[in-house]
Amino acid sequence: MFERPSGRPDDALRPVTIETGFSTHAEGSALIRVGGTEVLCTASVETRVPPFLRGQGQGWVTAEYGMLPRATHTRGSREAARGKQSGRTQEIQRLIGRSLRACVDLKALGECMITLDCDVLNADGGTRCASITGAWVALAIALEGLGKSKALTGQVAAVSCGLTDAGPVLDLDYAEDSKAQADTNFVLTADGGIVEIQGTAEERPFRPEEFQILFGLAQKGTKELFAVQKEALARRKESA
Amino acid sequence: MFERPSGRPDDALRPVTIETGFSTHAEGSALIRVGGTEVLCTASVETRVPPFLRGQGQGWVTAEYGMLPRATHTRGSREAARGKQSGRTQEIQRLIGRSLRACVDLKALGECMITLDCDVLNADGGTRCASITGAWVALAIALEGLGKSKALTGQVAAVSCGLTDAGPVLDLDYAEDSKAQADTNFVLTADGGIVEIQGTAEERPFRPEEFQILFGLAQKGTKELFAVQKEALARRKESA
Amino acid sequence: MFERPSGRPDDALRPVTIETGFSTHAEGSALIRVGGTEVLCTASVETRVPPFLRGQGQGWVTAEYGMLPRATHTRGSREAARGKQSGRTQEIQRLIGRSLRACVDLKALGECMITLDCDVLNADGGTRCASITGAWVALAIALEGLGKSKALTGQVAAVSCGLTDAGPVLDLDYAEDSKAQADTNFVLTADGGIVEIQGTAEERPFRPEEFQILFGLAQKGTKELFAVQKEALARRKESA
Amino acid sequence: MFERPSGRPDDALRPVTIETGFSTHAEGSALIRVGGTEVLCTASVETRVPPFLRGQGQGWVTAEYGMLPRATHTRGSREAARGKQSGRTQEIQRLIGRSLRACVDLKALGECMITLDCDVLNADGGTRCASITGAWVALAIALEGLGKSKALTGQVAAVSCGLTDAGPVLDLDYAEDSKAQADTNFVLTADGGIVEIQGTAEERPFRPEEFQILFGLAQKGTKELFAVQKEALARRKESA
Amino acid sequence: MFERPSGRPDDALRPVTIETGFSTHAEGSALIRVGGTEVLCTASVETRVPPFLRGQGQGWVTAEYGMLPRATHTRGSREAARGKQSGRTQEIQRLIGRSLRACVDLKALGECMITLDCDVLNADGGTRCASITGAWVALAIALEGLGKSKALTGQVAAVSCGLTDAGPVLDLDYAEDSKAQADTNFVLTADGGIVEIQGTAEERPFRPEEFQILFGLAQKGTKELFAVQKEALARRKESA
Amino acid sequence: MFERPSGRPDDALRPVTIETGFSTHAEGSALIRVGGTEVLCTASVETRVPPFLRGQGQGWVTAEYGMLPRATHTRGSREAARGKQSGRTQEIQRLIGRSLRACVDLKALGECMITLDCDVLNADGGTRCASITGAWVALAIALEGLGKSKALTGQVAAVSCGLTDAGPVLDLDYAEDSKAQADTNFVLTADGGIVEIQGTAEERPFRPEEFQILFGLAQKGTKELFAVQKEALARRKESA
Repeated sequence: MFERPSGRPDDALRPVTIETGFSTHAEGSALIRVGGTEVLCTASVETRVPPFLRGQGQGWVTAEYGMLPRATHTRGSREAARGKQSGRTQEIQRLIGRSLRACVDLKALGECMITLDCDVLNADGGTRCASITGAWVALAIALEGLGKSKALTGQVAAVSCGLTDAGPVLDLDYAEDSKAQADTNFVLTADGGIVEIQGTAEERPFRPEEFQILFGLAQKGTKELFAVQKEALARRKESA
Repeated sequence: MFERPSGRPDDALRPVTIETGFSTHAEGSALIRVGGTEVLCTASVETRVPPFLRGQGQGWVTAEYGMLPRATHTRGSREAARGKQSGRTQEIQRLIGRSLRACVDLKALGECMITLDCDVLNADGGTRCASITGAWVALAIALEGLGKSKALTGQVAAVSCGLTDAGPVLDLDYAEDSKAQADTNFVLTADGGIVEIQGTAEERPFRPEEFQILFGLAQKGTKELFAVQKEALARRKESA
Repeated sequence: MFERPSGRPDDALRPVTIETGFSTHAEGSALIRVGGTEVLCTASVETRVPPFLRGQGQGWVTAEYGMLPRATHTRGSREAARGKQSGRTQEIQRLIGRSLRACVDLKALGECMITLDCDVLNADGGTRCASITGAWVALAIALEGLGKSKALTGQVAAVSCGLTDAGPVLDLDYAEDSKAQADTNFVLTADGGIVEIQGTAEERPFRPEEFQILFGLAQKGTKELFAVQKEALARRKESA
Repeated sequence: MFERPSGRPDDALRPVTIETGFSTHAEGSALIRVGGTEVLCTASVETRVPPFLRGQGQGWVTAEYGMLPRATHTRGSREAARGKQSGRTQEIQRLIGRSLRACVDLKALGECMITLDCDVLNADGGTRCASITGAWVALAIALEGLGKSKALTGQVAAVSCGLTDAGPVLDLDYAEDSKAQADTNFVLTADGGIVEIQGTAEERPFRPEEFQILFGLAQKGTKELFAVQKEALARRKESA
Repeated sequence: MFERPSGRPDDALRPVTIETGFSTHAEGSALIRVGGTEVLCTASVETRVPPFLRGQGQGWVTAEYGMLPRATHTRGSREAARGKQSGRTQEIQRLIGRSLRACVDLKALGECMITLDCDVLNADGGTRCASITGAWVALAIALEGLGKSKALTGQVAAVSCGLTDAGPVLDLDYAEDSKAQADTNFVLTADGGIVEIQGTAEERPFRPEEFQILFGLAQKGTKELFAVQKEALARRKESA
Repeated sequence: MFERPSGRPDDALRPVTIETGFSTHAEGSALIRVGGTEVLCTASVETRVPPFLRGQGQGWVTAEYGMLPRATHTRGSREAARGKQSGRTQEIQRLIGRSLRACVDLKALGECMITLDCDVLNADGGTRCASITGAWVALAIALEGLGKSKALTGQVAAVSCGLTDAGPVLDLDYAEDSKAQADTNFVLTADGGIVEIQGTAEERPFRPEEFQILFGLAQKGTKELFAVQKEALARRKESA
């Protein structure tokens, strides 16, 4: 069995920090760093709902995801210039939206819409998971500002796990992700619930037992992320 | 606990049939019916590969997915007329492509590209799973026609399971799918491997134990689908 | 003079069948087969009209046309993926819409819109004519379901004729169409009226006398198509 | 029977003029005026052919059609701003292209491409027919400039005829066109051949006998147009 | 120091003419010719305003710009066919719109929208300046037709100046423009005000003193353009 | 005369800082803050040139500009989701590209392409000027990394000036910009040259004398920006 490229133990997250208030104008914002991955998450509140919800006395939470062209090793083309979002982008923003809606009581929110923008400034693997974890903080701040913290029904965080040459490991960085035999993303709640599970075989189908090990790693990893989220919110209160 | 809308037992698939040869021109084709869901799957062989694979001595398998505008209860707008594929469509066709690539040895395939088109003629839930199950048959026929059956390294099928008012059930139809508390899709191989797992909480986060029950149902369901796939291929040989 | 590739007499249609009810959800549907050409036609009723007709107390009939990517000998690109409908597609769906509107009293229809979707499942020449002939059946069924059969003011069918190496012939298949010296489409009514005439010289301008012969063939061919349409509607009533 | 809105006899064209050389840069150009309809036709020669013709030793002739936003009674939206050409535009430019290719020997043309741009400056009905008639002049000039006049195998012109309250009439203006019971376009050659026929019932299916009368009017009208085309080319030579 | 390619003195405009009424349907139109540059400018009045101005009791003036594909030396692709307007086109039409709004009292205009379409028929440099100068005339006619000449608060014209091998010169033609070391556009009012200034170094940064000389040339040039505009309006009145 | 909203003297810049190395992967990067405006500028080097420059032995410098949806007071729609870049975006990125090309010897650069991405993280007025000033630093770093510092022929910075209720002022923030009577942008070189001048009357045409005052303010402002750019590069060397 091999070592991880970063030398990390199998069940170790990369260093994680969350800085609130980076965005001047947003109702809530969180700049999350997970190792070399850096995502700016903002929550924007608008007093309207999408057409399909009009007049139903409930709100909506949605997400958009983007990556700066040079967040990656080689420059990617700008989606606005190409004229459309890639399938990958759409898949990720749909995932973020679903994950955050799972911890909001849309009736309690009332007729307004919160858009979570997750923009990757630097990418080193795990950007969709970092987006979800950061967006939860931005969302919590926005809801507090609205006086609707009660609409937040749970705490959500996400982490990737994978089967690599070093065996099953937690929180893949780019070097690991690009060569993994299997790649899984877990979006979990602080009370042990499952919001989303996505597992993909890359090189070979994997075994149910392997899946269980990855799930266990994800449970450990998200526990640590929940603490980082809480600290970020607490620090914010102190400095207020 | 309630009964399923269809009256089916919890672990029962809907009636499944696979008819080969529906498409006159395709190198392989399968019209799969899973209850009221009907998908035409074709495999098209082209002697070229996408730019990123040129000159590497290996092939590619990809998928495209579509739904006829009136496959559904109310007419949906035609994606070609709207000028873009929805995020849902792109997500599904990426899933189908990944799932099928997981059972093909791309080196053994050699420099050619197989496109699996999955077009939903009638929809009653579970269209992405029916697409994968049907596309595998179309792919197997196309590979046989190429004299490259050896490039097919496994048998793949997919089924959805979910948590409903009737508890955890196998193979959701539309009536169940639109109200499920959790929705999962499993793409499995005949030898028990996992190709893809997608689990989504719709109304409430769900528990790891519930996930295990759903997984068990999927294992039972795909076993039956593997048999239907084999019969379809066998019938085709007899009639040849 | 040469034989037709199919060996058919000059004035013979290919075998034509129309099967109703193929689409589960549509208000009317007809699967038409003309030799190797197979088109699924559905009629969808919506209780709205396009903006330019609002509040005028009349309805609208429109059509959309599509071809599955592998309906043809070599796979065509999917229009939804390319992000736009080709000029050919738009030309055909405009023709279908005009042809069907010619047999509907839009005032008698009242403020609703009927969309005729014609999707080619297998193509072997003559898809636009088969679409019109099949769409008329789907439309008739939808109008009957609305209790507005009286809004149907006539019976419409279409057939192509052309100048080939075998001389002027009725109902070109793909082998003939791709090499024809002239290609004409006639949309006619059961009482002998002309709804649309389209004639195109492919290799050389053709003579007025030749045009007259093609017109005569079309009159014979549509007479047979009108009978097939009526039988399809009659069979449906019997089985109801 | 009523008079025509313009007071013209049934078989009278509007005044037609063709001015060559309006475009400074084009290899051939013709500004055609048919009554209040005014179309600028240019022929551009490029030393390349479309991909599907490469290396086959033959050329190509194609057309594009546009209308200035305020060529019409009420301003139409600019197609470049809307981001796509309408179905009508595409249908017309395909017709123009086919019509002009019918009078060119593409082998004799050699490996080059001629694009005929037809831009409507003022519209008063019959823009597609005026485009074809004018484009033929631009094409003839461009071919002469290339020293390939022999590649021009015929003379082509187009005119519309229709059934109106004044009976069957030649060369519909906008007032007639917008209320016609049937609308037909004929693209004919100077030696009596048919290049394109398009007939459309607008209010009611029309009779074969009526069609014959319209055809006769078109033969008379195009005869006059052929003379105007020849004069324009002759005047150009004189002034050279 | 070299001569200008055209032999013109440094401070000489090309011959300028403005012909009104070229467009049959527009509420105002002006065909402006500046040497070999020819632009058709139309003003269209609509009794609506853009969404952001609704209910505010004021009007709007906007512009769109286009170039016929063969207005230039080599044929450019048609923006409608490419599916989008280039950055250059958008920049120019924004400039034209701003420039004309600067001479209109939008409150006095009342709730209506005037769209200025500037379509280049022949291009030989300076198309954006010719567009502005011509559009002012079309606008003045349209306002007069509306009985709102008082909403026109000033007279606006535009001219380009540049640093060339012949030194600082007025009104660059294409031969000069394509090789200029600096290119400037001045939109000025008849009473000496500045509406827009755009200066761009092409080969080398230029000096403030050089800029002053170019400004002086522009003041001289626009003075002449103001006279041509007035004459065009006066001639129109006489002929009415 | 009124005070500026920020209380700044008329000729005072907002606090300006430039931080290099924010982007992990880019060949050069600079995060510039001008008051509340914050732009991430990256320089990406690619060993290819655009088609129009192939084989000419020279390089290219281009720019793309974007704004995070919530960089502004109210959330703007994401251009990638809308499917196109606005005219404003295209105008700005063309300006940035021209400005930077003005200080690079493209022959000395050799056959490679440098793309400057300027992404606004927080917006408070002056984003295009901050982009240019920051992009110059990113470009200088990238050129040094390539060993081609000699291709950098000058130092470029940009600043906006405007006529406000407080008179002519330097470096408008959003509160001033949205109400200015005139808005000008100056792109200048350290040796006193003009790269770009853009002046726009917003409410009323302005006078040549006013323009001169604004120019003077810009000369003072850019002098200070040149110093900040140099310090950022010097600090980077020290820390290396």
